[in-house]
Amino acid sequence: MEEQSIRVEERQDKKEKPKSEDLIFGRNFTDHMFVMDYTEGLGWHNPSIIPYQNLSISPASMIFHYGQSVFEGLKAFRTENGDVQLFRPEKNVQRLNQSNDRLVIPPIDENLALEAIKQLVAMDSDWVPSTEGTSLYIRPFIISTEPYLGVAPSHYYKFIIIMSPVGSYYKEGINPVKIAVENQYVRAVKGGTGEAKTGGNYASSLKAQELCEKEGYSQVLWLDGVEKKYIEEVGSMNVFFKINGEVVTPALNGSILPGITRDSVIQLLKHWDIPLVERRVSIKELYEAHQNGTLEEAFGSGTAAVISPIGELYWEGHHLVINEGKTGDISKKVYDTITGIQYGKMEDPFDWTVKVEKNSKVRQ
Amino acid sequence: MEEQSIRVEERQDKKEKPKSEDLIFGRNFTDHMFVMDYTEGLGWHNPSIIPYQNLSISPASMIFHYGQSVFEGLKAFRTENGDVQLFRPEKNVQRLNQSNDRLVIPPIDENLALEAIKQLVAMDSDWVPSTEGTSLYIRPFIISTEPYLGVAPSHYYKFIIIMSPVGSYYKEGINPVKIAVENQYVRAVKGGTGEAKTGGNYASSLKAQELCEKEGYSQVLWLDGVEKKYIEEVGSMNVFFKINGEVVTPALNGSILPGITRDSVIQLLKHWDIPLVERRVSIKELYEAHQNGTLEEAFGSGTAAVISPIGELYWEGHHLVINEGKTGDISKKVYDTITGIQYGKMEDPFDWTVKVEKNSKVRQ
Repeated sequence: MEEQSIRVEERQDKKEKPKSEDLIFGRNFTDHMFVMDYTEGLGWHNPSIIPYQNLSISPASMIFHYGQSVFEGLKAFRTENGDVQLFRPEKNVQRLNQSNDRLVIPPIDENLALEAIKQLVAMDSDWVPSTEGTSLYIRPFIISTEPYLGVAPSHYYKFIIIMSPVGSYYKEGINPVKIAVENQYVRAVKGGTGEAKTGGNYASSLKAQELCEKEGYSQVLWLDGVEKKYIEEVGSMNVFFKINGEVVTPALNGSILPGITRDSVIQLLKHWDIPLVERRVSIKELYEAHQNGTLEEAFGSGTAAVISPIGELYWEGHHLVINEGKTGDISKKVYDTITGIQYGKMEDPFDWTVKVEKNSKVRQ
Repeated sequence: MEEQSIRVEERQDKKEKPKSEDLIFGRNFTDHMFVMDYTEGLGWHNPSIIPYQNLSISPASMIFHYGQSVFEGLKAFRTENGDVQLFRPEKNVQRLNQSNDRLVIPPIDENLALEAIKQLVAMDSDWVPSTEGTSLYIRPFIISTEPYLGVAPSHYYKFIIIMSPVGSYYKEGINPVKIAVENQYVRAVKGGTGEAKTGGNYASSLKAQELCEKEGYSQVLWLDGVEKKYIEEVGSMNVFFKINGEVVTPALNGSILPGITRDSVIQLLKHWDIPLVERRVSIKELYEAHQNGTLEEAFGSGTAAVISPIGELYWEGHHLVINEGKTGDISKKVYDTITGIQYGKMEDPFDWTVKVEKNSKVRQ
C-alpha cells in the first residue's frame, strides 16, 4: 500500500500554554489535531493535521449508541538537551490494530499512524513541557460515525489524535496507594473485550471505582469474571507482586489488557535477572503470602502513572499492609529506569525511544 | 422537584419525508430533537426541543474515550383512526435510570423525560408513518461530554432524543431466522454491564455477529460468560423456548437485559394461562429437548422486531430445526397481539398504550 501524505493546515492564532506547575492530567489540549476518515469502499483517506477543534457529528452517529471505539495512550518527553522523544510508539499502533480487530473496525496503516503521531508532535513540540514529571500525553482514538440506529459495524469512522501536556496522573505521585479487592463488579471476562482498549471496559469500571473511593481506597483490584478468584488488573493498570523474592504478574488470558508498560517492566526485570513469572495469581495466595511475610511488594503499571506502588490491599475485612506501606525497591528501580529512559537521562539498551525530528514535520 | 418546562424552537425548513415503502430501519431522522444538558452542581437543565442538527462536541469528550453512555428504544404507532400512541414508554424511562445507575450517570426526572418524548412525538407527529408494520422509532440516549482524558465519571452530559420513521427491523420480517450458538465470544457476565442498556454491550457483540453472518446465520445465541452453558439472549433480543408445552425464558440474572417486550410477552402468556417459567436454560437441555421432540418453538423478543421466530439453531455440528422451520403458534399469537395493541387494532387490557395529544405539544 502506497503511503498517503499528510495534509497540514496550520493554526494561525496559537493558544496560550498552561504553566508547567499548573498542569493537570488531560485537561488542556495543544494547537493541532490529526484526523483521518474511513468510508466503506474508499478506505482510510485524507490524513490531515488541522487546528484543534470541535467535531460536528450527527446525533445518530453510532459511537453515541453502540460504543464501537478504540483508543491508545502514549507520551512524548522532553530530554535534558531539549530533544523530544516518544516511548515505544510502534507498540501503541500495533495494539490499536489488535483492538480494531476485536471491535470490527477496519485496520489502519501502522506506518502512517506512526508518522501521524511524529508529525503532530513535531508540529506542536513547543507544547512538550520540560519540568520534572511532565510530558505530552498523546491520545489516538477511532470512533464509528455512521448515522444509523441498527446494531452493526459502522461504514464510516474517524481516526483522531489529540494531545495534552500533563503533570502526574495521580495526585499521590509515586507514593503508595491503598486499593480494595472488588468482589461484586467485573471489569471483563474471557470472550469479552478486556484485552482490547475500548471505551466499554472503562465505562464498566466506573461504578466499582466510585464505591471504592467512598470507602477511602484509590483503586480497585479486579478479579476474574468467571471464578472471582484470580487477580486481573488494578484500576486501569496491570499489576505485579513480589512474593518470596520472585515477581509475579497475571498471565495474559484474554481479559487482561496487554500493557506496554507491563511489557517494559517484564523486559527490565529479565534484563536484571530478577525472577519474573507470568501466571495466574489468586487473591487467596496473596493473602497467605501476606500472612507468612512473603508478600514483599506490589505495584501497578501503566502509561499514565508508569508505576503506582500499592501500600495496602483490602480484602474481606483484612487490611494487608505491604512493605510497611512504603514504595518497594523494585517499584522504585523500575520507575526510575523507565522514566530515566523516557527522559533521556539513562541509557536505552532496548531502543525503546524514538526521537521526533522537528524539521521533518511538514511533508506536503 | 419542580418540573422544568421544555423550551421549543421550531424548524422553519421542514425536511422531505421518505415514502412509507422506502423506509428502512434507523436511517432517516425527523425535523426535531430533544436536548437537555447536565452540569455538575447545576444538575439537569435547559430541556429543549430544537431542529434536528449535528452536535458540536470536543474531540476530548469522554464519550469518545471511555464509553460512558446509556440509551433506550421505543416506538410511536399510528392507529387506524389516525391517532398516535406510545407503547409502555414509562418502562423505558425507568430503565434509562437503572442503566444510569450502573454507568454512574446522574438520574433524570422520569416525568420530564416522558413529557419530552410525548412533546417531541407530538411536534413531529406527521413523521409517524401509517402503512402496515411501520412506526416512528424513538431513541433517547445520554452521553458524557466533559473534555477530559482521565478515567472517571463525567461532570457534563447531554440527554438527547432523536426519532426515525422505520419499516421492519429484519429484512426477513416475521419469518423464522437461523441462529448459531456462540461458544467463543461473550456478550456480558454477572458483575458487568449486561443488564444495562449501554454502548459497550453492543460494541462487544459485533465480532461474533460478523462471524456468524459469514456462516449464514442471522444472529448468535449468547451463552453465559461463566460456565458457557446457559442461554442468555439472542442477538440483541431476549429469548423464549416452548418445551413440552411450557414456555421457558432465561431468568434475569444480572447479565441479561430486562426487556420491555420480554415483560410484555410474559404478561400475555400468563393472561392466556399458558405455562411460563423464568429459570436457567442450558444449551444441553435445548439439544436434548430437540432430540426427544419436545422443543416445540423458539423466538426472540425486542422493541425493534417485536418477535423474531427461530427456525433453526446451530450448535456444535448439530442443525436443530425447530417447528419445521416455521413460525410457531405462540410466536404468531404474541406477535399479533402485541402489534395489535400497539396499532390500536386490539383491546389493551393492560393499559400499555399512551396516546400522544397533538394540541398539548407547546407548553411555554
